[in-house]
Amino acid sequence: MTITEDKALYERTLSAIEPMDVQWLDRASSYQCRLTKPPGSLGVLETVAARLCGIQQTLPPIIDRTKVIVFAADHGLTRHHVVGPYPREVTAQMVANFAAGGAAINAFARLNDASFAVVNMGVDAELSQFGLSESENLIEAPVAAGTQDITSGPAMSEAELYQALSTGIRLADECADAGYQAVAVGEMGIGNTTVAGAVTSALLHMAPADVTGRGTGADDDTLRRKITLIEQAMDVNKASLDSGFSVLRSLGGFELAGIAGLTLGLARRRIAVVADGYISTAAVFAATTLTSGVSDYVFCGHRSTEPGHQALLDAMNQKPLLDLGLRLGEGTGACLSLSLLKAAARAMSDMATFDEAGVEDKA
Amino acid sequence: MTITEDKALYERTLSAIEPMDVQWLDRASSYQCRLTKPPGSLGVLETVAARLCGIQQTLPPIIDRTKVIVFAADHGLTRHHVVGPYPREVTAQMVANFAAGGAAINAFARLNDASFAVVNMGVDAELSQFGLSESENLIEAPVAAGTQDITSGPAMSEAELYQALSTGIRLADECADAGYQAVAVGEMGIGNTTVAGAVTSALLHMAPADVTGRGTGADDDTLRRKITLIEQAMDVNKASLDSGFSVLRSLGGFELAGIAGLTLGLARRRIAVVADGYISTAAVFAATTLTSGVSDYVFCGHRSTEPGHQALLDAMNQKPLLDLGLRLGEGTGACLSLSLLKAAARAMSDMATFDEAGVEDKA
Repeated sequence: MTITEDKALYERTLSAIEPMDVQWLDRASSYQCRLTKPPGSLGVLETVAARLCGIQQTLPPIIDRTKVIVFAADHGLTRHHVVGPYPREVTAQMVANFAAGGAAINAFARLNDASFAVVNMGVDAELSQFGLSESENLIEAPVAAGTQDITSGPAMSEAELYQALSTGIRLADECADAGYQAVAVGEMGIGNTTVAGAVTSALLHMAPADVTGRGTGADDDTLRRKITLIEQAMDVNKASLDSGFSVLRSLGGFELAGIAGLTLGLARRRIAVVADGYISTAAVFAATTLTSGVSDYVFCGHRSTEPGHQALLDAMNQKPLLDLGLRLGEGTGACLSLSLLKAAARAMSDMATFDEAGVEDKA
Repeated sequence: MTITEDKALYERTLSAIEPMDVQWLDRASSYQCRLTKPPGSLGVLETVAARLCGIQQTLPPIIDRTKVIVFAADHGLTRHHVVGPYPREVTAQMVANFAAGGAAINAFARLNDASFAVVNMGVDAELSQFGLSESENLIEAPVAAGTQDITSGPAMSEAELYQALSTGIRLADECADAGYQAVAVGEMGIGNTTVAGAVTSALLHMAPADVTGRGTGADDDTLRRKITLIEQAMDVNKASLDSGFSVLRSLGGFELAGIAGLTLGLARRRIAVVADGYISTAAVFAATTLTSGVSDYVFCGHRSTEPGHQALLDAMNQKPLLDLGLRLGEGTGACLSLSLLKAAARAMSDMATFDEAGVEDKA
């Protein structure tokens, strides 16, 4: 694809996104009051189910076919700086682990009967060295062998961002065509907690120190270094942080841009997208800033302990479905929350009404 | 069964309960450090998995076959007092709904591939009027047509309590013999939030006003009335609240006693028991006061908004797996959390180690 085609796909997608249908929210709420349970007693699941009705424009909503997509890429930052306990090479090694089915997300996807794919958005390694080739589980779509170092300039070119966004949009179309009703997104990229921190700081106009935490296990020194690096990246790129698009280009990663594109594409096709923890939520949030209506399609799977996550959740008016202390990424929290989206939908499709069951409503 | 037989079964069960095997906790923790993830990054799921190893004395633990059992009964209290928006008759009507598969818990059990049964522990109605007869889904074990009114005396006789406990113990043995590795417990009984409040107040020596909330939808007047009724029940029965056994007898319900018996029986057979919200947690907690080691087998599925629930959780040093604002009971929260127990176990059985996957451990 050329940059012209990628840009055209992106712009066509943006302009075609519509908000969820509030008429179906009302219908869902009315119907929920007729089901054999005290009003509102299914708590968050009633809100989820109503939103699914608004998204799918149907009642009951259906969440039967689900997919997990992990976007992986390397970061220029980690060529020159240490921002966590694991070396840069681990990105590619974990992609191989995903493709072979040995990671936590594979175990959870199998358990939840969700399809799985990992997308190479720009890992800095030849995956063939692991004996890997493109398959149903491994999608090869590398933009480049990692981004540029954001502490000395923009992460990627405009053409590269269009390419990454378009990859996500095309994957969303494939999901829609294959009949998936919800897609959980995950990420893998050594260094991307720092990158997510930069994106979050820029999008929410927050100080790096207020959003930055310990990722998968940073010590005090690493934490201070991460904050300094984010400050540096924002300073170097300060002339081009005025939109979600320019923030992704200047401070993002290819996996974040892929997730943002997928989010846009899923919203366009009226499919629920489930964010995972901090990093994927930053990418999904970036997508919601690109045009209106996108956040209607977003569910947040799991609460991250990273300070910036709460700020992103607040900005999207979201409360995560799970809070299990996970700090792994990979889409693990999003994947586990798929069973709750299914439960919300099933309550509406499977429960009897007071009339049907011969149960007395309130005295 | 005679009271002598029931009592003997109860005492045999108590004396045979052993704590979980801490040696397996250590083995589990060591093994978890070898899996392809940062140490501790699966959060609560690592604790759950390690506990399952200690319970099952194996590594990896297995949670494949699960069951939901809902214990239903009526309460003498509701013959004379209004403690919620739904009439007494709804207990039996909901039992019929459970048996027909139309309640929320049925939808969630089907979704999670869990077997389901509702146990009539003492519903004040002939279930045959609903065209119901004993089946795999409906177990008839009524102790009596509801308890006595706890505001004027003990809920049940000693013989009735032994009978209810034994019913639970026998069900646990059936679960063990059928190969279930985790059982989620639920309850249905109009008025039983008040009964759970009395049991919680007595067991934890707390003021009724500090444990009592709005159940499935009590208004201010009802809330005040509930507190007064609990105070009255504790006063009338104050001479016999000196043990978990006497509290269950004086203030309990047949469904609570059934859950307590099931909990003992599952602990005896080294099977995980998953409590739901406030009421089932009160019953499970009562079981933990009857002998030591029982709480090792208990998982808490869902956080209740009832104030007394946190006190029970604290007393058992438990944190619920889910917090979805459910206030329905029926075992719904416990059932939804089964997928997390499964995920915890699957991470241990399905994930590759660093060595196997060729992923570098910390730099």
